[in-house]
Amino acid sequence: MLNFSLLRTAVTPLVLASSVALGAISLQAQTVLPMMPLPAHATQGSGAFALDPGFQIDFEGYQEPRLERASQRFMVNLSRETGILHFPPATPMQHRFTIKTEGPSAPVQRLGEDESYHLQVSSDGVLLSAPNPLGIMHGLQSFLQLVKTTPQGFVVDAVVIDDKPRFPWRGLMLDSGRHFMPIETVHQTLDGMEAVKMNVFHWHLSEDQGFRVESKTYPLLTEKGSNGLYYTQAEVREVIQYARDRGIRVVPEFDMPGHASSWFVGYPNLASGKGPYHIQTTWGIFDPAMDPTRESTYEFLDKFIAEMTALFPDAYFHIGGDECNGKEWDANPRIQEYMRAHHLKDDAALQAYFTGRVQKLVTKQHKITVGWDEVLQPNTPKDVVIQSWRGPASLAQAAQRGYRGLLAAGYYIDLNEPASQHYAADPLGGAAAALTPEQQAHILGGEATMWSEFTTPEIVESRIWPRTAAIAERLWSPQETKDVDSMYQRLSIVSKELGYFGQTYQATSDKMLQRMVGNADDSSLKILASVVEPPKEYDREGLHDYDIYSPLNHLVDAVPPESNQAREFRNLAAQISSGEASPADMQKARQWLTMWRDNDAALQPILPNSALTMELVPVSHNLAAAATIGLEALDAIEKHHKVKQTTQQEELAKLKELEKPEAVLLNMIVPGVETLVIAKQQD
Amino acid sequence: MLNFSLLRTAVTPLVLASSVALGAISLQAQTVLPMMPLPAHATQGSGAFALDPGFQIDFEGYQEPRLERASQRFMVNLSRETGILHFPPATPMQHRFTIKTEGPSAPVQRLGEDESYHLQVSSDGVLLSAPNPLGIMHGLQSFLQLVKTTPQGFVVDAVVIDDKPRFPWRGLMLDSGRHFMPIETVHQTLDGMEAVKMNVFHWHLSEDQGFRVESKTYPLLTEKGSNGLYYTQAEVREVIQYARDRGIRVVPEFDMPGHASSWFVGYPNLASGKGPYHIQTTWGIFDPAMDPTRESTYEFLDKFIAEMTALFPDAYFHIGGDECNGKEWDANPRIQEYMRAHHLKDDAALQAYFTGRVQKLVTKQHKITVGWDEVLQPNTPKDVVIQSWRGPASLAQAAQRGYRGLLAAGYYIDLNEPASQHYAADPLGGAAAALTPEQQAHILGGEATMWSEFTTPEIVESRIWPRTAAIAERLWSPQETKDVDSMYQRLSIVSKELGYFGQTYQATSDKMLQRMVGNADDSSLKILASVVEPPKEYDREGLHDYDIYSPLNHLVDAVPPESNQAREFRNLAAQISSGEASPADMQKARQWLTMWRDNDAALQPILPNSALTMELVPVSHNLAAAATIGLEALDAIEKHHKVKQTTQQEELAKLKELEKPEAVLLNMIVPGVETLVIAKQQD
Repeated sequence: MLNFSLLRTAVTPLVLASSVALGAISLQAQTVLPMMPLPAHATQGSGAFALDPGFQIDFEGYQEPRLERASQRFMVNLSRETGILHFPPATPMQHRFTIKTEGPSAPVQRLGEDESYHLQVSSDGVLLSAPNPLGIMHGLQSFLQLVKTTPQGFVVDAVVIDDKPRFPWRGLMLDSGRHFMPIETVHQTLDGMEAVKMNVFHWHLSEDQGFRVESKTYPLLTEKGSNGLYYTQAEVREVIQYARDRGIRVVPEFDMPGHASSWFVGYPNLASGKGPYHIQTTWGIFDPAMDPTRESTYEFLDKFIAEMTALFPDAYFHIGGDECNGKEWDANPRIQEYMRAHHLKDDAALQAYFTGRVQKLVTKQHKITVGWDEVLQPNTPKDVVIQSWRGPASLAQAAQRGYRGLLAAGYYIDLNEPASQHYAADPLGGAAAALTPEQQAHILGGEATMWSEFTTPEIVESRIWPRTAAIAERLWSPQETKDVDSMYQRLSIVSKELGYFGQTYQATSDKMLQRMVGNADDSSLKILASVVEPPKEYDREGLHDYDIYSPLNHLVDAVPPESNQAREFRNLAAQISSGEASPADMQKARQWLTMWRDNDAALQPILPNSALTMELVPVSHNLAAAATIGLEALDAIEKHHKVKQTTQQEELAKLKELEKPEAVLLNMIVPGVETLVIAKQQD
Repeated sequence: MLNFSLLRTAVTPLVLASSVALGAISLQAQTVLPMMPLPAHATQGSGAFALDPGFQIDFEGYQEPRLERASQRFMVNLSRETGILHFPPATPMQHRFTIKTEGPSAPVQRLGEDESYHLQVSSDGVLLSAPNPLGIMHGLQSFLQLVKTTPQGFVVDAVVIDDKPRFPWRGLMLDSGRHFMPIETVHQTLDGMEAVKMNVFHWHLSEDQGFRVESKTYPLLTEKGSNGLYYTQAEVREVIQYARDRGIRVVPEFDMPGHASSWFVGYPNLASGKGPYHIQTTWGIFDPAMDPTRESTYEFLDKFIAEMTALFPDAYFHIGGDECNGKEWDANPRIQEYMRAHHLKDDAALQAYFTGRVQKLVTKQHKITVGWDEVLQPNTPKDVVIQSWRGPASLAQAAQRGYRGLLAAGYYIDLNEPASQHYAADPLGGAAAALTPEQQAHILGGEATMWSEFTTPEIVESRIWPRTAAIAERLWSPQETKDVDSMYQRLSIVSKELGYFGQTYQATSDKMLQRMVGNADDSSLKILASVVEPPKEYDREGLHDYDIYSPLNHLVDAVPPESNQAREFRNLAAQISSGEASPADMQKARQWLTMWRDNDAALQPILPNSALTMELVPVSHNLAAAATIGLEALDAIEKHHKVKQTTQQEELAKLKELEKPEAVLLNMIVPGVETLVIAKQQD
C-alpha cells in the first residue's frame, strides 16, 4: 500500500519560473516556502520532483509500525491532495523516497525530545531523515505542504530543509467539559495538529457543566455528572494511541478545586457547601468548590489521581486551579474554623494549601503537576509548570522565580480575535524578552486554548482552524518569523490544505448557511456572511442570554472568527487612503462596495422566512448603509471632491452606530469605510 | 441520548401559508410533499410541530437495540439538519414522539417483508407506527425529510402518511472490483440508501481487476488477486450489520465464469487457458474464463460457495454470468472435445451447463441464485432470479417464462445520464406493461448499478447521488408518480438533505476544482464546471486511454454527471422559443449567456498553470463561442430581427462542432443555444 510514483521529470527553468507563481497567491519564491510553520532553515534548489501513481516509500535504519502507519496516512493525504490513487507499480521501481530513521523515540513521548528532521528534495529523489520517528512525522507534513500543481502535474520543488522547533511544548487545549466533543472531533483535531506540527493535546476533561472521563473507582462522576456524554477509558486509550501516532502528547486536565460542580452531583461530600449539586447549565464562574479541609477529599483525590495517571501515560498532569471564587469556603463555618486553626489567612492561602496537597498526590504517581496561574503561590514546589492565562508578565515572573511555564494568554482562540493578534503573542515577548537565557529556557512554549462555551462539535473546527496554524508557527518557527502579510498568504494556503487532510470547516459553514435559509437560494446570505464576524473577547455573553441548551446555529456561529474579505478590504482602503491605490484597486473597492450595498435588496425578501435569518434584517441593512457611505467616499476621492467637515463627522458618527453589534454580529466593513471617509479631502 | 424537544406551537394560518413557500423552490403544498420517494398516501393537516432541544422518543410495543440505534441516528441527523443539539430535558417532559412497533422483523431480512409504516404528525404529537422495525426506519427518514425552517423555527407540518413500497427489491449495486471502495465509502453509501428507503445493497465483489473478499479457504484469491485491496471477513460482517441496521439486505456477487481474471492469479487451474494470469489493469471484456469442464472447478466452487454463503446471510447469492466471450474455451482443444462429447453445441450451451452446476451448489447451501441476463437458458431452474442489463423486453420475456427478475437496464448510473432518464425507466414499463398481473408480480424491482471504471472512492458519491434518489422513488412510489419537474424540484431538496446525512459530494467537487488550479482563484473554473458534463454511455472510453492507474482528477471527474444549470437553461430556452418567456426569463438568459461568454477572459490566464487545467483551454473557448451565438439569437428574438436562413444554418453547424466532446467533456449549453437559434425569425 506504500506506493506512489515519484517520476523524475526534466523541469526547464521556464517551467520552474511559472510554477513559483502560486496563482492568485504569489509568494516570493526563493525566500518564503508555502509552509506553515516555516522551517528553521531551508535552501531552495533547482528542478523538481513529479508525483505519479506508483510512488514507493523505502525505509532505512530503525523501523516500527508507527512509521508505517505515518507513511500510510501520508499516502492517503497525498492522494487527497492530488487525486492520484496509489497502486503497486506494475514493475518494481527504483525507490526514490527514502525515510531514514536513526532510532526509536521514547515509549511515552517526552517533553523536549528531539523533533528535528532533514528533508532533501531533488529531481533525483527525496531523502527524509531524522533521529527518531517524531522528526519523520514532521518531515512528512512538510513534504505534503510543498506539493503544488504545475503544467507538468503535481511536483515538489527541489529544496533542502533542516528543521527543528523553537519551543518543545506546542499545545492545543480542547475543552470537552462545557460542550462535549465526540471522539471523532478529537481525532479530527489531532489530524489538524499533526499537519502544523503541534505536539501537546491538552484535554480539558472536567468542568461545571460535565465530567467527561469514565472512572472505574468513582463511577458516579460520569453517571451523575455527564448527562451521558463522556469518554470511556477504552476511548481515552484510543485517543492517546491516535495522538502518539501523530507525535502528540496527551496531557489531561481535571480542574480543581473550582470549576468542579459536576464532580459533586455524584459525590457531594467532596464539596464545601451543603448541596444538593447539579450540573451547571449556564456559563460563568460558579461557587461550588472542593473542600480542602477534609482528609476525605484527599483520600478521594489520591485514588482518583492514581487511576487517571495510570490511564494517561504522559509525565505531566494538569490540575487546573483557575477561578475558584471561594464563596463556599467563606460560607462554611467549619472551613473558616479550619483556616483559623491552620493559620491560612485567606482563600488564596487555602487554595495554596489544597494545591500543595494535590501536588503531592501527583508526585506520588511520579508525575509533574501543571496548573493555571493561580497554583503559583509562595511555597509551590519548583517542578510545577505554570500555564499562564494572565499574560506574559505573569509568565516572566514565574520564570524569574525558577518555574517552568507555558503561555496561554494571547492564544485564546475562543475569543474570535484575528490570526495576526495571536501571531504577535510570543512566549518570549514582553517582559520575558528581558529574562536571562536561563530564565527564558524555563518558558516551554504555549497553548492555543479552545474553551467551548460557544463551540459545538459542528463548529469547533472553524474556531480552531486555520488561525491555530499561526500559533503553531509562532511556537515552531524562528522568532524572527513575523511578517504578517506572509503569514496570511500562507494561512490561506494551509487552510485549503487542511481541507485535504480531513478538516471540513469550509463545507460545514456552507451547510450551516444553507440550513438557515431552508431551500431558498443562499448566495446573498453568503455575501453578508463573508463580512461579518462574531463579537470579540467576552462580549457575546453580554449581548444575549446563553446556556448549554442554546442552539449554536445562527449566523454568528456559521461564520469564521475572522473575515478574510473584510481584512482585504481594510488593506484596500488603507492603500486608497495612502494615495497609492492602482486603478484596479479602486475598481475592486467599488465592485465590493456596490455588491454589499445591492445585496440588501436581494437578501431582505428571504430573511423573514426563517427564525434563523429574521434577526439579520438590520444586519443586512447596516451592511448596505456602510457600503453606501463607502461608495460616496470613493466617488469623492476619485473626483477629488472636497467635503464639508460636518458631513464627514456625521458619516463617522453614523459609522460608529453601524459598528455596534447587531444580532450578535460585527459589521466588519466599517473600519475600511471609516478609512475612506477620513481620506476624503475636506472643504 | 434520545432527547430533543418537540414543543407544541400555536401556528397561525398566516404562518402556515408562508411556511409552505419553500424559498426558491416552491412546491404545490397540499399536493406534493418535499419527500423523495413520495409516499403511497399522504393527507396534509393544519398546524405544525416545532423542534427544540429536549425532544424525547418514547417507545411502545416491541423493542430491540436496532430500534434504539435507529433513533439515535435519527437524533444525530436531526441535529445536523437543524443545528440543535439534544440534551436530556431539565425536567421530565411529556413524550410526544411515539414509536410503536408491533413485532420483530425476520432475523435475516427477507425479500418481501412488510416495510409499511404510518406516520402521524400534528401540533399535539408524532406517532410513528409499523408492523416491524423496517417500517419504523423508513418512517424516521420520512420525518427527517419533512423538517423545514420557518419564522417560528424548525417545524414539521401536520400530516398523516400511510406508506409502503411498490417493489420489494430496491437495490444499489456497487462495483468494488474495478476500483476498490474502502469500508468508509461502503458505510456512506448505505447511509444514503437508508435516506431514500432502498433495501438491497448488491455488492459486486470480484472482477478482472481485483478479488475483494478474504477467503479463508482460498487465501490466494486476495493474496495474489487484490493488490492488497480487499475486505476482511470481519469487515464484511460489519457491513452486513451496518446494512441490517438500516433495513438493507446485502447480496454479494461473485462474477463467473467470465470477469474472473483475478481468481486465476492465485488459482490458475480454475481457468480455461494456459496462463500465467495477472490482474487486469485496463478496462473491457477479457478472455480468461473458468473451466466448466473440469470437476476440480466445481470442487473449488463448492467449498468457496459454502464459505461465502455462510459469511453472507442473505437468502440470495449473485453469480454474475455476464460477458463471457468464450475465447479461452474456443482455444482449448480439451474443452472443445468435452463440448462435443456432452453435446454442448456452443459457448452459450457450455455456459448454461456451468451455470446449472453452480446453481446446484448454491441451492445446496439453501440459497437462491441471482444472475445477469446470460444465466437464463432453456433449462434454467425456475427459482433463479434474472437481473436484466439487456432491458425491459428481456425482463418481460423472463417473467412470461415464470422467472422472477430485476431491472438494471435504465438504471446504469455510471453512464452519466440525467436523472429524468432513469426516472422514466419503469420495471413494469415497456413490454412488461402487457404482462398479466401474475407475470408482473415476478418483477421484483430494480437496481441502480454503479460500475466503477471511472469512479474512485473520492467521486463515487457524486456518481450515485443525487440521481439514485430518482431511481429509489421509481421503485418505491406509486407508478403514477412521474412528474419530472416535481422530481427535479424534490431532488434538489433531497440533495441538500443528503449533505446533512453524511454525503459530502458537494464539498468534494469544490475541493477537486480548487485542487486543479492550485492556489489560484477557482471562481471562473466553477462557472465553467457548472455547465459541462461527462460523456454519456460508453463514449468516454473512446475519447482517451484509461487504465486502473489513470488518476480520475480532471474536470470530467469533478463535475456531476448532470448539470442543473444547463438543464435550467434548456428549460429557459424552450420557454423563450415558445414565446411564453417573461421579461425576467429573458433577463436571466441574458445574464447567464453573458457570464459564460465573459468567463473565458477570466479563466484563460490561469489554465496553462496546471496540468489539470491546460486541457480546458478549448473547452472554455467553446463555452464562450456558444454563449456568443446565444446572445446574438437572444438579441434577434427580443428585437424581432429577421435572420437569413444561411446565417442560421451556419450557426447551427457551428453549434454542432461545439457539441463535440473536448477534453472528455460535453458543453451542455449548446442544446439551449440551438433552441434559441432555431427560434429566430427567418428572413
